[in-house]
Amino acid sequence: MKYYIETTLKSDYTSAIEKVKAALKEEGFGVLSEIEVDKTLKEKLGVDFREYTILGACNPPLAHKALTAEDKIGTMLPCNVILQKRGENEVEVAAVDPFASMQAVQNEELRSIAETVKDKLKKVISAL
Amino acid sequence: MKYYIETTLKSDYTSAIEKVKAALKEEGFGVLSEIEVDKTLKEKLGVDFREYTILGACNPPLAHKALTAEDKIGTMLPCNVILQKRGENEVEVAAVDPFASMQAVQNEELRSIAETVKDKLKKVISAL
Repeated sequence: MKYYIETTLKSDYTSAIEKVKAALKEEGFGVLSEIEVDKTLKEKLGVDFREYTILGACNPPLAHKALTAEDKIGTMLPCNVILQKRGENEVEVAAVDPFASMQAVQNEELRSIAETVKDKLKKVISAL
Repeated sequence: MKYYIETTLKSDYTSAIEKVKAALKEEGFGVLSEIEVDKTLKEKLGVDFREYTILGACNPPLAHKALTAEDKIGTMLPCNVILQKRGENEVEVAAVDPFASMQAVQNEELRSIAETVKDKLKKVISAL
């Protein structure tokens, strides 16, 4: 099962991050966390890694519904959108498919919320 | 399939967060993100929600291995440990089971790394 929805942008890295944040906002997602993976790996392990960022995206009304339906779903929130540099002017963007990542959770109401979130994340990726 | 490993602490909320962070550190996890869910829901939706925190925990050597084995696994990182207030002096702590959350990913090497991380998170929860 494919667990992400992806696209590739012809863009520099900083502009790509801004574009992704703007597209997320259009679908009602705020960014609650931003992890610079390459900088973390350099700092903690001294290893070089391509530019790689994890954005933790949250649509508050849907997050509230999900937490009400399944009280420990915070273990899988927020929904991540990742960026990684693939070339000089090429950035790959991938959003988690929450329907795939939450398949271990036996909760019909949550499944329906996850499908709604998946549809919104698909729109975010298509809009880029 | 159960997708989390949990315990309940007899503790105030602030001390519980500190205990969890210390136990994570013992197993080599740093906390890369900290989301105060109740405050976010209050701010964005005006709703009251019990104290609920998402800690994004990362063991750098294992994260590096996972990202090398599966380049889009950042969509499911870091591994979350959540806390929620259950009573006056009662805090529930739950860590994601990465083996369960990553079951949609068809990658044997990743599965083995996820099992290692799961074992470490089990130790964190047992130590509380």
